[in-house]
Amino acid sequence: MFHLFSKLLTFKNYYLRTMKSIVLLGAGNVATHLCKAIHNSSDFKIIQVYNRNEKSLIFFPSTLHKTSLLTEIKEADIYIITVPDDAIVTFSERLLFKGKLVVHTSGSVAMKTLSNKNRKGVFYPLQSFSKNSEVDFSVIPICIEADNDFDLDLLKQLGDSISKNVLAVSSEKREKIHLSAVIVNNFVNYLYQVANDLMQEQSLSFDLLKPLIMETANKIKHLSPAKAQTGPAKRNDKKTIEKQLNLLKESPYKDIYQDLTNSILNKYNNH
Amino acid sequence: MFHLFSKLLTFKNYYLRTMKSIVLLGAGNVATHLCKAIHNSSDFKIIQVYNRNEKSLIFFPSTLHKTSLLTEIKEADIYIITVPDDAIVTFSERLLFKGKLVVHTSGSVAMKTLSNKNRKGVFYPLQSFSKNSEVDFSVIPICIEADNDFDLDLLKQLGDSISKNVLAVSSEKREKIHLSAVIVNNFVNYLYQVANDLMQEQSLSFDLLKPLIMETANKIKHLSPAKAQTGPAKRNDKKTIEKQLNLLKESPYKDIYQDLTNSILNKYNNH
Repeated sequence: MFHLFSKLLTFKNYYLRTMKSIVLLGAGNVATHLCKAIHNSSDFKIIQVYNRNEKSLIFFPSTLHKTSLLTEIKEADIYIITVPDDAIVTFSERLLFKGKLVVHTSGSVAMKTLSNKNRKGVFYPLQSFSKNSEVDFSVIPICIEADNDFDLDLLKQLGDSISKNVLAVSSEKREKIHLSAVIVNNFVNYLYQVANDLMQEQSLSFDLLKPLIMETANKIKHLSPAKAQTGPAKRNDKKTIEKQLNLLKESPYKDIYQDLTNSILNKYNNH
Repeated sequence: MFHLFSKLLTFKNYYLRTMKSIVLLGAGNVATHLCKAIHNSSDFKIIQVYNRNEKSLIFFPSTLHKTSLLTEIKEADIYIITVPDDAIVTFSERLLFKGKLVVHTSGSVAMKTLSNKNRKGVFYPLQSFSKNSEVDFSVIPICIEADNDFDLDLLKQLGDSISKNVLAVSSEKREKIHLSAVIVNNFVNYLYQVANDLMQEQSLSFDLLKPLIMETANKIKHLSPAKAQTGPAKRNDKKTIEKQLNLLKESPYKDIYQDLTNSILNKYNNH
């Protein structure tokens, strides 16, 4: 019994000491940034990048094998799908191998929808990636999920090798995180757009608002959003609200102003 | 004629070289931060702080004269009203002196509504001030307005002495700037609050979203909001939108999600 246990330990140590191999499936922003981050890991190595369109592959290091053919995909410990959300499930069905660990990187796609022919997992970095924006992966939370503890452990190791904040999250919780991410990223950016339009109408530069935008984001580093909340709706200043609604009376953004104001009024003033 | 002109020049030089005096009227966050910023100026000196409530005055330097009596307000070159927006007009009427330059610091109050017994002006720093948050005034845009060129010049000098970005703005334009500020500050912070609530419902820490929040704000330093826009609504991903609306079906935030999504859909997909 002890003998078997010690053999298992030796196997585990051997396994942990061996470099694990990764194949990236897709060549967009997430793949690009993951590739850069994992490049510095001493435990994981990206051995290949697949993309249907060969052109996108030129931006990946020449040391990697690159292919646009599903038949050429190599044997690896982890396959990371980074194709667009609505293509993930179909793509996972088209893979030609079986029994391998195949994970996607999406916030909104449930793990169980991946093809049954491989082991399933999720490796979701909670960040918005752009082509020309450098990313410090070490501060990005990574939400992982897997079918079994062994795979979860492997994804935890991969996460730990690039980030200080890796957490196991169910598909159900992950979709709430993704919804929250849409709110603080996509919706917030859209409010920047709304303000941009209002400033431009007055021939004023959007740049004027940038210090305020930075301060608004910085403030919640040390203050809860509830404590950081200020403004006409928070203090129930009906005169200013009416004046601002009047400024927007011809604007397509009037509803947004009205809804957000009502919601703040309800939350802080109990009407 | 030349003689008179040269005398005027001498007078102007003398005037410019003399330290100008300021009385702060009100002792809230704006007054506190202005006091700190002007303290380092070599051309302007705050000589007194007035506040109706004596208690708030203790946080101001002991080198300043402090008073809670309107009758004790000193003679100065500029009087800066920092009382709450809805009290500014009434307060300006209650001042006992006449013919002086009296400015307020509000984004939303029209200059002309100030009392006629003094010269009118506006000195609006485009920032959100909190008690415990340090402020770098040098990057804060300051919108100034005055009745005449002489006063505008004086306010420009005051602005230049604490900020690199001082601009003359009419009351009409200023209220649009203030509306834009409400959107990128109050509304954006409220979206942080909405996400905070959604995360808490799942026993997840709001901290997970902070790197994304910072990236969202940082991105528009070098990208227009239109170029930075991503997400389900931008790419017209109806499946994800429906799923997220479903997650919010019992939530008070459903309308906000629906309105912002519709507005993004309209802007980027022409429906």
